[in-house]
Amino acid sequence: MLTIALLGFGVVGSGTAEVITENQDRIRRATGDGIEIKYILDLRDFPDSPFADRIVHDYDIILSDPEVQVVVEMMGGSHPAYDFTKAALCAGKSVVTSNKEVVAKFGTELLALAAEHSVHYLFEASVGGGIPILRALAHDLATNRVHSVNGILNGTTNYILTRMVEDGISFDAALAEAQQKGYAERDPSADVDGHDAARKIVILAAMSFSVRHNPDTISIEGIRNVKVEDVRMAALAGCAIKLIGHAEKTENQKLQLWVAPCAVPHENPLSHVNDVFNGILTDTDMLGQTMFYGRGAGKLPTAGAVVSDLTDIATHPYDVATAQHWSDGDSACLTDSATEEKARFLVILPPALDNAKLADALSAVAMIGNEEIGRCVITTGKITRAALDETLATAGKNASVYRII
Amino acid sequence: MLTIALLGFGVVGSGTAEVITENQDRIRRATGDGIEIKYILDLRDFPDSPFADRIVHDYDIILSDPEVQVVVEMMGGSHPAYDFTKAALCAGKSVVTSNKEVVAKFGTELLALAAEHSVHYLFEASVGGGIPILRALAHDLATNRVHSVNGILNGTTNYILTRMVEDGISFDAALAEAQQKGYAERDPSADVDGHDAARKIVILAAMSFSVRHNPDTISIEGIRNVKVEDVRMAALAGCAIKLIGHAEKTENQKLQLWVAPCAVPHENPLSHVNDVFNGILTDTDMLGQTMFYGRGAGKLPTAGAVVSDLTDIATHPYDVATAQHWSDGDSACLTDSATEEKARFLVILPPALDNAKLADALSAVAMIGNEEIGRCVITTGKITRAALDETLATAGKNASVYRII
Repeated sequence: MLTIALLGFGVVGSGTAEVITENQDRIRRATGDGIEIKYILDLRDFPDSPFADRIVHDYDIILSDPEVQVVVEMMGGSHPAYDFTKAALCAGKSVVTSNKEVVAKFGTELLALAAEHSVHYLFEASVGGGIPILRALAHDLATNRVHSVNGILNGTTNYILTRMVEDGISFDAALAEAQQKGYAERDPSADVDGHDAARKIVILAAMSFSVRHNPDTISIEGIRNVKVEDVRMAALAGCAIKLIGHAEKTENQKLQLWVAPCAVPHENPLSHVNDVFNGILTDTDMLGQTMFYGRGAGKLPTAGAVVSDLTDIATHPYDVATAQHWSDGDSACLTDSATEEKARFLVILPPALDNAKLADALSAVAMIGNEEIGRCVITTGKITRAALDETLATAGKNASVYRII
Repeated sequence: MLTIALLGFGVVGSGTAEVITENQDRIRRATGDGIEIKYILDLRDFPDSPFADRIVHDYDIILSDPEVQVVVEMMGGSHPAYDFTKAALCAGKSVVTSNKEVVAKFGTELLALAAEHSVHYLFEASVGGGIPILRALAHDLATNRVHSVNGILNGTTNYILTRMVEDGISFDAALAEAQQKGYAERDPSADVDGHDAARKIVILAAMSFSVRHNPDTISIEGIRNVKVEDVRMAALAGCAIKLIGHAEKTENQKLQLWVAPCAVPHENPLSHVNDVFNGILTDTDMLGQTMFYGRGAGKLPTAGAVVSDLTDIATHPYDVATAQHWSDGDSACLTDSATEEKARFLVILPPALDNAKLADALSAVAMIGNEEIGRCVITTGKITRAALDETLATAGKNASVYRII
């Protein structure tokens, strides 16, 4: 029997209790034994909950109980989540978390602390909700060299962009709809400005390359400036606009690491990941392209991922050889995406007679529209964003620009 | 150091040797130690291969060498692959295989034999090539109740269907192209008649429901009769025609288990799995829909899956609690898909004035085309295939029929 304590009894916490209760038979079969929730730490009381008798308000009760083997941190935010995690690891207890903020900011230190005490620090639920992507990177793809990871990592922004494509509504209208449906927070900044996706791509990059970068140091662009005309024109050019988290090792061993709305060609399976779903596309030396798709958020999918970490702990003792070990990366090892990365871009701009000349200057491989549809879409040749912006400025053009992945 | 022997030095065998050699550094990091190929059993000699000195022609050398911990069977076919597997397990050696025929036919017995000798029998490479779907079902989704699995499990047929959709060429022309490119065998029957997909869905169903059915007892329909008009009309109705392996638990605890070309709506991510790629969509109680996508065949992806099984063995001792245990299913537990399964169907037929009457009789939810495009597509209400066929016969109609998944 694995004895655990939950920190936080909100959406994910109560979902975790629900999954453990409902699927105890499956958990017994998968682990050879069950999981028992001994304590639930929350500021509130839950007198009507079947777990009312497990609620405690003092973390020391959990820390000092030698029966508690695993602490499941689902509080969100950096503090006190980080401090509670450290305390648990130092007390020789494994920690499972859904808290991407803590993993992205403090993962290197916490993994080292876990190794020091020979306990697990697992966080499958922190990226892609119910999608088992972290375990795939840690185990199935571990003998591969990862070239790149591209992910649709935020359900809220993907829902908004899907509505803009399918219903032709504006960003503001789609955001309001997402808020009404409960997919977006009243303050939607963490989602729509790309910070949530940034934490997740930082974690995916660390899993892929064993180096964690501070999410505050990477280039992040959200979707507030995506226009409904852009989305429609991109579709004409055979692309969907998606908010992409991107990590890629370059030939000179630097790392491309950023979040930005990109143009995803319809041949790329990520372009068909719609609504609140997430998708993560890995490109590795042996397996080639592999995509993992599923519900990136929500009570039960996230709780399901927490429980899969718990069954992992129940069935595998900590093993220093197979555990994650990260180092903290120097931001000098990140490429400057504007000046050091060459790519093709979709350039969407008002019709004009001299657009063909601009297309020429951009070594364009395609140009569609212009006067007849009130908008022009140029697919550039391979170029840096800085050179592209300079060419646009020289031509006196104001355009929407999306990197093609 | 994990010491292994390869049985068969064909495409997958030589690929496995290549992955182990090329990525030995990654393997060391993932396992804390390396993998050593001590023997390679093949009828042929390979004097120019760097592995020439490991080639043996007598299986007894491998069986009787106590240093060999794992036998990797990549011979294909039932015999002697099955017999060699049994002998290895009985000699206390773990077995890893890419041989779907042996797993689908003899998996129950071989897993029991492995358990008896406390060794592993793993076969990630037998389904979906490099896609880590079996480990996901065995571990990540193990605490979930699986409702259904739908898979595009055969790259050859998916390539043919993709060509028919994208280039409007016939099945015969697409098959010839696939053969020319090396995607289809000279005798393409195992692929195009659905037998390969049947073995894989039998394995996926066994992983999901712990019961293995004989692939010879399930309903299998291939893609030889798919017409290019069907593919075009299905697209008009918002669907792609795909060869689907389907496994689903019914409310009365029977199992739907079959292979057939189906109409997959464009909202379903499987509809966008094109070319030689495979996709497996699972629907489970906690995680909801999750899809795994990647290269379903090919030297390196398949070898990569073999190596991931080897690293699993290197890092985890056999554990009876977490190992697969199957029983053999009675075919009486399978539903009769024609009479016991209700579904919506796409009915594609020549234009006629009385098609609207037919649509009525089928409680149709949509009807498109007719005289104006030379073809009519009816989307039926929920109905059994038997009742649908009877209605068509009564109306004197000859139609192409695809179940909508």
